Amino acid sequence: MRYQLYYWPHIPGRGEFVRLALEAGGAQYEDIGRTPEESGGGRPGVRRLLETTEDGRLPYAPPILGVGKLLISQTAAILLYLGPRIGLVPKAESVRLWAHQLQLTLADLVVEAHDTHHPIAKSLYYEDQKPEALRRAADFRALRLPKYLGYFENVLAKNLDGDRHLIGKSLSYPDLSLFQVFAGLRYAFPRTMESLSGAYPRLMALHERVPMHPRIAEYLASPRRMPFNQHGLFRHYPELDAA
Amino acid sequence: MRYQLYYWPHIPGRGEFVRLALEAGGAQYEDIGRTPEESGGGRPGVRRLLETTEDGRLPYAPPILGVGKLLISQTAAILLYLGPRIGLVPKAESVRLWAHQLQLTLADLVVEAHDTHHPIAKSLYYEDQKPEALRRAADFRALRLPKYLGYFENVLAKNLDGDRHLIGKSLSYPDLSLFQVFAGLRYAFPRTMESLSGAYPRLMALHERVPMHPRIAEYLASPRRMPFNQHGLFRHYPELDAA
Repeated sequence: MRYQLYYWPHIPGRGEFVRLALEAGGAQYEDIGRTPEESGGGRPGVRRLLETTEDGRLPYAPPILGVGKLLISQTAAILLYLGPRIGLVPKAESVRLWAHQLQLTLADLVVEAHDTHHPIAKSLYYEDQKPEALRRAADFRALRLPKYLGYFENVLAKNLDGDRHLIGKSLSYPDLSLFQVFAGLRYAFPRTMESLSGAYPRLMALHERVPMHPRIAEYLASPRRMPFNQHGLFRHYPELDAA
Repeated sequence: MRYQLYYWPHIPGRGEFVRLALEAGGAQYEDIGRTPEESGGGRPGVRRLLETTEDGRLPYAPPILGVGKLLISQTAAILLYLGPRIGLVPKAESVRLWAHQLQLTLADLVVEAHDTHHPIAKSLYYEDQKPEALRRAADFRALRLPKYLGYFENVLAKNLDGDRHLIGKSLSYPDLSLFQVFAGLRYAFPRTMESLSGAYPRLMALHERVPMHPRIAEYLASPRRMPFNQHGLFRHYPELDAA
């Protein structure tokens, strides 16, 4: 099967969670947003899909995965579909549901990380909501971030198959997404993450283990991997960070 | 199959999305948070579950659905599991995925509605983040709410089986959740919703149709249905509302 990933070309954003899974699973895919506009790609190629409703099913926002005629939006739904098909989650329904729950909790954390720099409105610049961002980021660093990191550390600790992976004994897509979230948090909040890291040894170890997966290592070293930037979910504003 | 719903007893909150599905599907369930503490229910009965990890799978937060030994958390994951089992979504995988996408988009809207009254921190009272709430609510009313409502109106309009339901020709769990979100928005923002309602005739019609479903009508008239209140996701602060 050949997949199409539809996502904006200028940020890793939520598209990167899908990209990491496609890469780790060795899937064949076209990254439509990053192919030339002349051949149907780029931002217009992504935007066009938001107006496509041949099957009467209107996607809300990218990322969108194309699989033949099927289009799937919402990051967690894409990974729910993709995971068992590319060997990134065991086939048993109870385990797939568990992976999906972890993914949804990661999605909740991502929204909260985003809202530290945009607590008032996506429609306004950061500079227009900076006092509010300072307050929200302080709460995020002190309470929300430790709550989420503590939860995932605990999930690793309680995994009956050992603490090297979130699920079972091998790499699954929530490991990949956790890697990306952790990397994003380190980009956005380097001082906070440095001072917190000692408290989450299993998360730290997982974060170092994921990029050693051969396909992920190859991907991360390739031009397909996009660095974090100041337009995405995770942004580095030094004043929102603290040791 | 007999289900257990674990959710806090004092608010409809996210538990209500699950409750509406269980009721519409005619499922047998125990509402653990609302059974007496002496018999293992109440808040302690819910809280206990957050520390239970016999299977090595730690839930993050309620609602949690118990199905035999299986525990499922995250509202959208619960409905994904429950929907096809209680006749609230067609069995075809592509349709189940579509229902799930709609549910996840509703979940995004719910977070944004909540954050209008808590834009800075869940750990602080509304009164301690009121200036920020005024700003966030203004953006929500002007941009975010119309964007979401317009999307769901469009989904109804483009449904190849007609505009009476989000999916196909009959009631599915996203219809129920949309009903609950719409009711919550009317509770929180009565003036805004009144002035917007003319723009979304299909949503209005669906909102009036859902409570006519016999099981839902019976449920809504029963003491099992909890009214909205000032502790939940949707809260009415007149200063956050506007015509």
